[in-house]
Amino acid sequence: IESFILKIWKFLEKAWILAVAEPKKVIHGLKVGLAISVVSIFYYTRPLYEGVGGNAMWAVMTVVVIFESTIGATLYKCINRAIGTFLAGSLGVGVHWIANHSGKHLEPIILGTSVFLLASAATFSRFIPSIKARFDYGTMIFILTFSLVSVSGYRVDKLFDLAHQRLSTIAIGAAICVIITMIFCPIWAGDELHRLICRNLEKLAHSVDECVAEYFRDDKTSTASDEDCSKKMQGYRCVLNSKATEESMANYARWEPAHGRFKFRHPWKQYLKIGASIRNCAYCIGTLDGCVNSKTQAPPNLKKHLKNICMRLSITSSNVLHELAFTLKTMKKSSKIDFSVEEMNLAVQELKNSLISLPNLDIITNPLPAEANLEPITKITIPPFMEILPLATLVSLLIENATKIEG
Amino acid sequence: IESFILKIWKFLEKAWILAVAEPKKVIHGLKVGLAISVVSIFYYTRPLYEGVGGNAMWAVMTVVVIFESTIGATLYKCINRAIGTFLAGSLGVGVHWIANHSGKHLEPIILGTSVFLLASAATFSRFIPSIKARFDYGTMIFILTFSLVSVSGYRVDKLFDLAHQRLSTIAIGAAICVIITMIFCPIWAGDELHRLICRNLEKLAHSVDECVAEYFRDDKTSTASDEDCSKKMQGYRCVLNSKATEESMANYARWEPAHGRFKFRHPWKQYLKIGASIRNCAYCIGTLDGCVNSKTQAPPNLKKHLKNICMRLSITSSNVLHELAFTLKTMKKSSKIDFSVEEMNLAVQELKNSLISLPNLDIITNPLPAEANLEPITKITIPPFMEILPLATLVSLLIENATKIEG
Repeated sequence: IESFILKIWKFLEKAWILAVAEPKKVIHGLKVGLAISVVSIFYYTRPLYEGVGGNAMWAVMTVVVIFESTIGATLYKCINRAIGTFLAGSLGVGVHWIANHSGKHLEPIILGTSVFLLASAATFSRFIPSIKARFDYGTMIFILTFSLVSVSGYRVDKLFDLAHQRLSTIAIGAAICVIITMIFCPIWAGDELHRLICRNLEKLAHSVDECVAEYFRDDKTSTASDEDCSKKMQGYRCVLNSKATEESMANYARWEPAHGRFKFRHPWKQYLKIGASIRNCAYCIGTLDGCVNSKTQAPPNLKKHLKNICMRLSITSSNVLHELAFTLKTMKKSSKIDFSVEEMNLAVQELKNSLISLPNLDIITNPLPAEANLEPITKITIPPFMEILPLATLVSLLIENATKIEG
Repeated sequence: IESFILKIWKFLEKAWILAVAEPKKVIHGLKVGLAISVVSIFYYTRPLYEGVGGNAMWAVMTVVVIFESTIGATLYKCINRAIGTFLAGSLGVGVHWIANHSGKHLEPIILGTSVFLLASAATFSRFIPSIKARFDYGTMIFILTFSLVSVSGYRVDKLFDLAHQRLSTIAIGAAICVIITMIFCPIWAGDELHRLICRNLEKLAHSVDECVAEYFRDDKTSTASDEDCSKKMQGYRCVLNSKATEESMANYARWEPAHGRFKFRHPWKQYLKIGASIRNCAYCIGTLDGCVNSKTQAPPNLKKHLKNICMRLSITSSNVLHELAFTLKTMKKSSKIDFSVEEMNLAVQELKNSLISLPNLDIITNPLPAEANLEPITKITIPPFMEILPLATLVSLLIENATKIEG
């Protein structure tokens, strides 16, 4: 029993830490609670004596199922639910009418086959990427409504009443959701995506800085700021893992109306491309990080020789990244960006030159040369090179994006 | 109008291609259609004259919502739905009882606050990772059922009837789902995960082969097999993108009973670790691929010098990968694996040696040395080095896994 209490305690502790770290999630919980209470009270004033299965139930259900943490997701579900219900309802009534007019024997056969065929087709269509991205939920609602309507066994005129009631309750539920989610602390998917990308760019910049600095650090003794450093260094890992979030956010952002600095047809797909470029850079930094922790290190004198130029390169490239993050944040092309890119390219060139001069130098001072030297040096120098390539595409993408937003 | 028809035509074409490529998805669609038809016919024989909101509706709804393409996911949703409904139902009845006994004025207040608090808490708990992974759906059902029960305004004794009916209809729907999904072409999440990891290992091996071969290919003219090659080369990209799939599969696989070669408590988490190692390797291959397409290439004579040893390294490492895939597939430690790892390490050592001897050689034959040479050589040679590191952890992980499964 004691271990059980301990487990619950730990669980609560975790929940508390999460709540403190991301108060938005708590607010979302409260919003859902509020929305459900509002619907409940709305219907409690006229109890559902027809049963839990009464029509009012649909309003409660709509709120529970539709309410998502971002406005985009909520709107996506609202619109999907409405379209799905409407389409399936009208199709269901049509099939019902046909079945009614074709005799007692054929009726169950027609209904059965239509349910089977439509459910199969709709389920399969959920695997098609373009449907999955935009209408996954709507397709499910379509299947649900269609099979409910065709099973119900009503006459057509009564079905119309029913459909009307169902649609109106769904509309009430959806309206409550949308109003509450937009009034209290609105969380826009587009906003979140924008901030995620900015944050990723900054994390990447810190990672570059820290990795190279760590590689060239002379005393490997742990200091007070050590944990902080390694945390920054690991920032690129978050970047690598953010693909799924980015995609779903971009998906939801499409459904959102104009808000803040974002217009209705904001180029959200561009963000995905930027995200992909950022991830490409993060791969390179991953390789860099691997070098830092590798057992075969370059000898100190060589490290010293290359330290300054490598540090310069890392600083200039992280500068470019910071500049890009700033550009993205303000959505204006920063005047400094061309300058920083220029500086970075200069640093690359310098590093190349000093690398070329290196073997001679090394061989002259040390007749039995380069054993285990060559490898780690290049190890540290290659990744920054590689990094430039994706960075260049990233820069061009971002500039294109900036002009698109401005234009 | 013409463009609209064209769009529909293209859409159908896409769907057809998908259907041919993955017949499993079509089969899943048919299974869902069958399950819904069965439930419909079951209830069509005694029409739901109480309204679309009748209890039979819950059976149809259960089938539509619960039926997923893998058995694990279906079971997960079944169990979650059952637990969520049961917990929320009993809690709802309890709250109802308290509210009933505390007077007319307090009743709506108690019901309202309890709905608000529980819905908020449950919604927030969905953000906690451990809940999200295992009970996300159950929590939603909990909120739904609890608010429905507390809104309903029934007396307690009638509520018991209702709960009994609802649970039994859910049980019928769930039973039909589980039976159909297990009888016709069962798709096990665990099986899928297992095969995904094997396939990824093999893709990785092909990528290594193709990348290095491409780098050292003499004539850059495109041949008939060119497209095939570049497809193989890009295999590592699939590996990079499969994280989300792996995680959800591993999540669902936990709910599955013993099947085929997999016992009930098969170490599914190990697969995630293996997947992470594979992705680590894939990052390195990504860097390698970048070298192949890079504009700065090593001069031909140097390439020739290193060709044999690099090819050997790539062949041995892809051998190890194939061997690992085989080990995983058969779930037995292959006797050849130690031998191949040994071979690979030998190739690494040789490459190191020839790299060390290279600068001397180069400088002797060419007094103005290494301009732009050093960089591309190392570019091609470093990634394989790096690759060894994650490979080593991968090997140890897989061996550990194999012993776990056998032991």
